[in-house]
Amino acid sequence: MRIGELSRRTGVSVPTIKFYVREGLLPAGRLTSPNQATYEETHVRRLRLIRALIDVGGLSVAAVREVIAAVDDPGRPVHDLLGEAAVRMVPRYGGEPAEDGRLSEARERVTELVRERDWRVFPGNPAAEALAVALAALGSVGHERFGEVLGAYADAAEQVARADLAYVAHHVAREELVESVAVGTVLGDALFAALRRLAQIDASDRVFGGKGEVFGGDGEGEEGK
Amino acid sequence: MRIGELSRRTGVSVPTIKFYVREGLLPAGRLTSPNQATYEETHVRRLRLIRALIDVGGLSVAAVREVIAAVDDPGRPVHDLLGEAAVRMVPRYGGEPAEDGRLSEARERVTELVRERDWRVFPGNPAAEALAVALAALGSVGHERFGEVLGAYADAAEQVARADLAYVAHHVAREELVESVAVGTVLGDALFAALRRLAQIDASDRVFGGKGEVFGGDGEGEEGK
Repeated sequence: MRIGELSRRTGVSVPTIKFYVREGLLPAGRLTSPNQATYEETHVRRLRLIRALIDVGGLSVAAVREVIAAVDDPGRPVHDLLGEAAVRMVPRYGGEPAEDGRLSEARERVTELVRERDWRVFPGNPAAEALAVALAALGSVGHERFGEVLGAYADAAEQVARADLAYVAHHVAREELVESVAVGTVLGDALFAALRRLAQIDASDRVFGGKGEVFGGDGEGEEGK
Repeated sequence: MRIGELSRRTGVSVPTIKFYVREGLLPAGRLTSPNQATYEETHVRRLRLIRALIDVGGLSVAAVREVIAAVDDPGRPVHDLLGEAAVRMVPRYGGEPAEDGRLSEARERVTELVRERDWRVFPGNPAAEALAVALAALGSVGHERFGEVLGAYADAAEQVARADLAYVAHHVAREELVESVAVGTVLGDALFAALRRLAQIDASDRVFGGKGEVFGGDGEGEEGK
């Protein structure tokens, strides 16, 4: 297909498609004349992947480039591919936590958690470090005791990870594995965050509501400001 | 305290502190002379909140400004405050999903889920819309069947939301409520995402590993590229 049809089918504008080609996210089309290229179904699929990671996952173009590189790298063992995709998907934290003492304490708490749960990961894993940074940040704003709910979070994470793996094992072909893990990880975060908001609003209504009112997106909350 | 001490205690540079004051994130210090201002403990606390939201939560300065506005708005009922903070924390999606048919189908699925679970939220709630967008995006990249694991995700989200509410009910004073919900929502997402990665790596090792090898952050995965 021509670039115009690729644009129509994916909802991505022609200049943006050209930008993704220049940035190395999308393979160039096959030239049929010096000024004309033709695109395949693989381009449609890849463009949808790029847009999902950017629009819904909130990834930067640079982060998408890394995911794409993992997707395009063939021939590694399944567990290795999965693990690597998961590690690449760890959010990068820009800042430094204010107090180093708090961070080393949080790292110990994470090591302890991994041991308690017999999770087969190294404590130096980037996800373990991300967890320690989040815990230390909670401590720095006065929520040291948030660590008390860590067990409930870890139970829920195990449940979600089992569902993720079951989905991958049943529905995903070997050659689509890394793409699926990348997509599932990024979009799964967005999915879970939205579900957590809904469940929070429900739980808050049950605990604090009591007026028979339902808080929601009916615009009333916004008008009240 | 002077601005230099505020900077030292929070690890935020003096120019950045001045930027936050100009941007309306941080109240100005009290002027003690035309060129000298003094800052209080509330400034330390507020700066830590700003940094946690930006560095760990990944929020933009504009998004932090909205959270701060909610935190500083007194006198609303508890459930209303909680609901609003939760709604403000829904990630904003930039793009349009490629196919509208897919999105309306996803919206129906979300309405159905909310009804099944008897969640006290309006279907038009921003979190419900965010969920529909994430589901539609998964569909657009060939993962229509990911909806099959939605139940497991929703169970986990309920579990996390119950833990969140229990924490709020036990450990948070009324005047700190919105701040706590804002922080807990943003940092809780980061916490859960990191735990999900760890649990995924563990689950992947158990399902696909089998070589007695442990995938982790020991650098070997990186060297292999």
